[in-house]
Amino acid sequence: VALPIAVDAMGGDRAPAEVLEGCRRARDTRGERVLLVGRPEVVQGQGFEAIEASETIAMDEDPAQAVRRKKDSSLVRAAEAVRDGRAAAMVSAGNTGAAMAAALFRFGRLKGVTRPAIATLIPVPGGRPTVLLDSGANAECQPEWLVQFARMGSCYARVRLAIEHPRVGLMSIGEEAGKGSPLVKTANELLDATPDLRFVGNVEGRDVMGHEVDVVVTDGFTGNVILKTLEGSVNFAMAEVRRRLAGLAGAEILEPLYAEVDPETYGGAMLLGVDGVCVISHGSSSARAIDNAITTARELVDLHVVDALRGPMHTDRAEPAGS
Amino acid sequence: VALPIAVDAMGGDRAPAEVLEGCRRARDTRGERVLLVGRPEVVQGQGFEAIEASETIAMDEDPAQAVRRKKDSSLVRAAEAVRDGRAAAMVSAGNTGAAMAAALFRFGRLKGVTRPAIATLIPVPGGRPTVLLDSGANAECQPEWLVQFARMGSCYARVRLAIEHPRVGLMSIGEEAGKGSPLVKTANELLDATPDLRFVGNVEGRDVMGHEVDVVVTDGFTGNVILKTLEGSVNFAMAEVRRRLAGLAGAEILEPLYAEVDPETYGGAMLLGVDGVCVISHGSSSARAIDNAITTARELVDLHVVDALRGPMHTDRAEPAGS
Repeated sequence: VALPIAVDAMGGDRAPAEVLEGCRRARDTRGERVLLVGRPEVVQGQGFEAIEASETIAMDEDPAQAVRRKKDSSLVRAAEAVRDGRAAAMVSAGNTGAAMAAALFRFGRLKGVTRPAIATLIPVPGGRPTVLLDSGANAECQPEWLVQFARMGSCYARVRLAIEHPRVGLMSIGEEAGKGSPLVKTANELLDATPDLRFVGNVEGRDVMGHEVDVVVTDGFTGNVILKTLEGSVNFAMAEVRRRLAGLAGAEILEPLYAEVDPETYGGAMLLGVDGVCVISHGSSSARAIDNAITTARELVDLHVVDALRGPMHTDRAEPAGS
Repeated sequence: VALPIAVDAMGGDRAPAEVLEGCRRARDTRGERVLLVGRPEVVQGQGFEAIEASETIAMDEDPAQAVRRKKDSSLVRAAEAVRDGRAAAMVSAGNTGAAMAAALFRFGRLKGVTRPAIATLIPVPGGRPTVLLDSGANAECQPEWLVQFARMGSCYARVRLAIEHPRVGLMSIGEEAGKGSPLVKTANELLDATPDLRFVGNVEGRDVMGHEVDVVVTDGFTGNVILKTLEGSVNFAMAEVRRRLAGLAGAEILEPLYAEVDPETYGGAMLLGVDGVCVISHGSSSARAIDNAITTARELVDLHVVDALRGPMHTDRAEPAGS
């Protein structure tokens, strides 16, 4: 029997109701095995396996401090369930930084990884999604970390999206190698000197939702801004389209497109670089997003993504962990 | 008689053909007075006033160096025409950095401005556009510059968009003041201590195309990434909508929306902080974009935007120019 997916029942703006509903959908539609983690009154009597946790980490708490102090929080207990072999993966729509810290402290890092990064799939209508990383784990980055992100992202695209030699681009404000911030200029040189990557050079904002590149590497500040800009603009534009087409016969032909570009379709990003599967969902996740995040977590477990990452990260060229 | 708008006939990926066509439209539809600046064989015989310039600055040339060396380039001559009172404003779709350098060196800075910034209007369907700055002039910024950008952007929104007390937000990766890069954290404190601004705190990527804020302040790297991400995703999404609706009766009801969100609608961004009107158009500008950029330039002249900026920038609180 497959190990369950540990779900943080307390995480997210719409927890616990939407989280519970998402878990029910995963169970009822696919027979998914869920391990609920959270306050006793929330996790008991729901028909799921459960781990009780007396504490909750709020969305705006300081992540590292919260994880250190709240040892009986749902996030920490979920991470421990994975570490202890009671769950195959964890899913949380809670405080992103805290989810990351819990996974990092309890799972540990993969060899060769200085900092884990959040990898998000950006939907590209009519094509394969683009892997964007770091989409929010590290507001400030060193150029060497971006090379590690490139390696992890490339491996992730290969395993998850079945792209044999993923094209990796570095986010900048011009395609020329000499353009951008000092971080980008140095990272460009380092990436160019990394033979095991198919580095295609600098890319620009418009390439994230395009067909020219498979993996976009950037620091966590820029990546998070890109992600939220995309979500906001696409949601906004689609809402306007829907509003203006209201009542028009045949307009339902757009329903698949709305679903395709909806950020909830992928329902969660993977934290790459830790020794276990941690799927981080949007704070505003609905039941549908949670259900999709559980699907994602199961897929990542079945694809052995973490094992696949061990090879590429553990090379002579990679910076030793902890440096 | 109003002074003409100086247009760089050589600037942009589609120059000179589309630029000339844009100038013709401006003249023929609105009686606009255009002063063409460029190579003799391009600017002569077109029925416009003309300034001959023997040199051209390429899209990928080093901006400051090109402007220093190519004193007879169309960009430099266009900026000189404004400085010398032969034109009311300049418009270029050429090398952005060079257009900026030409304007900076020939017009000079406004008092209180350390670095000029590019202010772009982001279309918001069903609402007023958002002013985004810096959208590409300064890849690296000091926190104090962001305060200047906030002042300039606020003044610009007041004069151009007729918003009495514009709401100014600082781009970050979370609404809490303590979130973001060190640059953002310091800038947040400085902005909070600036009483003449209506600072609403940190905003996120999704707010750029939203109704909650009028001015979004950020460094030129992040701003440029946001701008191109928006352009790319909205264009991509709209193209998909159009493709999937092809042949559906009544689908033309979306035409106004396509036009509204098209980046070419505003046809150019203003360089704020120099002592003259400089409108910078997208490198890929079509005739329509050039025509709209000329409209924008005329509007900015008529609104006396540069004069309006003198007051807010020349305060005791503002950092002295050149510091």
